[in-house]
Amino acid sequence: MTATQTLAQQITSTKADSLPDWIYHESKRTLVNMLAISISASGAVPVLALTDWARDEGAKARATAIGSGLRTSPTIAALLNGYMAHLQDYDDTHFPTVLHPTAPVWPAILALAEDIGASGRDALAAFAIGAEVACRVSMSVHPWHYDAGWHITGTAGVFGAVAGAGWLLGLTADQMFNALAIGGTQASGVREVFGSDTKALHPAKAASNGLQAALLAKSGFTGPDDIIGGRRGFWEVLSAAGHNEEELTGAWGDRWAFANNGLKPYANGVVSHPIQDAVIKLRNEHNLKPENVAGIKAHVHPLVLELMNRAEPRRALEGKFSFQHCAAAALVDGAGHDAQFTDAKVLDPVISAVRAKVSAEIDSTMKEESARVVITLNDGTTVETTTEHATGSPENPMSNEALEIKYSALASEIIGKTQADELLSAVWALDWATDVKQVTKLMVKG
Amino acid sequence: MTATQTLAQQITSTKADSLPDWIYHESKRTLVNMLAISISASGAVPVLALTDWARDEGAKARATAIGSGLRTSPTIAALLNGYMAHLQDYDDTHFPTVLHPTAPVWPAILALAEDIGASGRDALAAFAIGAEVACRVSMSVHPWHYDAGWHITGTAGVFGAVAGAGWLLGLTADQMFNALAIGGTQASGVREVFGSDTKALHPAKAASNGLQAALLAKSGFTGPDDIIGGRRGFWEVLSAAGHNEEELTGAWGDRWAFANNGLKPYANGVVSHPIQDAVIKLRNEHNLKPENVAGIKAHVHPLVLELMNRAEPRRALEGKFSFQHCAAAALVDGAGHDAQFTDAKVLDPVISAVRAKVSAEIDSTMKEESARVVITLNDGTTVETTTEHATGSPENPMSNEALEIKYSALASEIIGKTQADELLSAVWALDWATDVKQVTKLMVKG
Repeated sequence: MTATQTLAQQITSTKADSLPDWIYHESKRTLVNMLAISISASGAVPVLALTDWARDEGAKARATAIGSGLRTSPTIAALLNGYMAHLQDYDDTHFPTVLHPTAPVWPAILALAEDIGASGRDALAAFAIGAEVACRVSMSVHPWHYDAGWHITGTAGVFGAVAGAGWLLGLTADQMFNALAIGGTQASGVREVFGSDTKALHPAKAASNGLQAALLAKSGFTGPDDIIGGRRGFWEVLSAAGHNEEELTGAWGDRWAFANNGLKPYANGVVSHPIQDAVIKLRNEHNLKPENVAGIKAHVHPLVLELMNRAEPRRALEGKFSFQHCAAAALVDGAGHDAQFTDAKVLDPVISAVRAKVSAEIDSTMKEESARVVITLNDGTTVETTTEHATGSPENPMSNEALEIKYSALASEIIGKTQADELLSAVWALDWATDVKQVTKLMVKG
Repeated sequence: MTATQTLAQQITSTKADSLPDWIYHESKRTLVNMLAISISASGAVPVLALTDWARDEGAKARATAIGSGLRTSPTIAALLNGYMAHLQDYDDTHFPTVLHPTAPVWPAILALAEDIGASGRDALAAFAIGAEVACRVSMSVHPWHYDAGWHITGTAGVFGAVAGAGWLLGLTADQMFNALAIGGTQASGVREVFGSDTKALHPAKAASNGLQAALLAKSGFTGPDDIIGGRRGFWEVLSAAGHNEEELTGAWGDRWAFANNGLKPYANGVVSHPIQDAVIKLRNEHNLKPENVAGIKAHVHPLVLELMNRAEPRRALEGKFSFQHCAAAALVDGAGHDAQFTDAKVLDPVISAVRAKVSAEIDSTMKEESARVVITLNDGTTVETTTEHATGSPENPMSNEALEIKYSALASEIIGKTQADELLSAVWALDWATDVKQVTKLMVKG
């Protein structure tokens, strides 16, 4: 069997009952996280532009867009929700590959489940299977594919959307095999667009194209013999420098690539997260005030300086890639949500004053998820702490409590606390829901 | 200025009146050809599947699908018409690059023109500009990009759709620059899917995504600094082995890459056309019968064996990429319309018997549009001829008369001779039409 045939067989032979309990729980956690950041992003300018386009399409009301509540077709709802889920760069991260598995997959599943009336448990299983496929496709081309310039969230993401949506539609192995080709040949998205409105279009299109591919395959559309491993397929064309078949199809059902996925506590580049953990811990333990701080010194892994050394960020997006700004906002606000990275926050005088006192030094004993932070006060005393594993890394996953705090902060601002609480309860209870409408009806702004 | 900025400037500063007359005429010829093959393809199984999906979308009635007459949104009409325009592999070919420029571009323009009420002349100009951009993007990455496994009709095609649609929408240079990024990062389609229903989805998606990108850019969506020439842009990521900026932006308005585009006399892969020209010539001159033929030997350019070496095709689409089948059908039927590539024809015993006697050998003196064919009869005698420039190649373009014969054969069968004649007249008169509805209303089956 070809690589694609094996994968199609594995996906379609997976039963909802065979999935471990932790997968269901984690699938709900990713949904809570996605709803939080998507609701928070729903008023952003490019979201409004995309929503205007969707409204002009005037498609039949079968699925719901987060925030606006626009009722549209499942493929368009998947597009809109996939866009919002990634726009703030605040979604989950598959640590080994920097894939963001939720944005291309959940929006496809949620829209399809709403349309066909799938149960909550089947929707969760479909997401888990789709996310696992996205992670495995990513692992199979890591690091060559990303290094070549591809945005892996778009390219590997579409395979995940196909797999999850196809599973939920009950495709046969043959249909799944075709669906992977119909979707997989649309794998696209280059890293050149990072820093523009277009980046989040990658998972958006992956979700929408993947869902459409599954639907077309169900109606009999055919694909080639081996979209992934074939001579002119995904591996050869989009990852010419290397690939690994074992990572794609080995130990299916026993080994979970998705287990290395983590939720982000901060809406910025992941390498500064251990610094932020440490600053917030010290701030809260010692009740630190900005005006009392003389200096913040971080001892870090080299990637912090390579990727995020921006002492004087000028706008929102630069703030997200400035460890100095991240540390300063953590001290002043005790948080790192998208609200800490607006243009206004980047120019805020209090934060700017603290930012000027932040420095970092490479410590070769530090791992990527670790940092030691020393804060010096005006009276000369120092306090310090070491983050071993940053919150959200596989060894130190975000707790449900921390996730709920993040969720409430982001969602309540837009849909109000009462509705946000109801929506949260609906997600936690999704395993027993006869359909997903208890979630989709509450994820819109009243 | 970056490559993308230069191109955006060139596109948006081009005036309809500055285009040479032959471009308008050729734009009409490509539309005649597209309507012929799309109408002919409109009843095919995968078209019905795609149309069912489109019908389920239930989008607002603003543009027309060829054949079915489904009234839907412009982006969906572009998808359906782009699919039909390429399904039979009977569309036009840009000879230097094997790009098929019409399928990803005209459907985007036609749907948009119908929606916004553009004049026939503006629609023709928009197509010409879009096709020119698709050809130039192709030239800029040729041959590295196609050799790496990309289906250039999908990848370069989307830039053409963006350019043409964006021009028709009157985008500013800044908006066009963003539109090229929004569409360009979606460039996709690998050659692995050749021979399946999925291949024609490449220009279909290019048309639809390109049109959507132009619309989003008009509403303010942003892209990166240089989608084509940037460090992680189209050239570096999708054509790592090489690129040529002069081919993209040199001598804009003076040199026309589109001038090397030709219409196809046969509904199959273009590299076997010179073989078919030769076989039909010998068949007719010597009144050859299948039962008298002992062997057909073709001396060919290497691409024939690389792209079309399928001794035993199993289904319709594989027949289109089998030089053996193309030669056998040419000998038996004296033609190469879509009717020569049905499943039944591929399995036909007479054609199969001849097919088993077809062989090819690389001749390094042959160009892509040339072939020498030697047919050996059962009595040991041989007849032979050489095609210097295959019919439809730039040096030997299809005449208007031959195009009309092809058009009538294909269109009349589906929409009847009277309507086919009316539609043909409407296209020839498009320069003076106040809108494109005289074409779009006649391209549907009554």
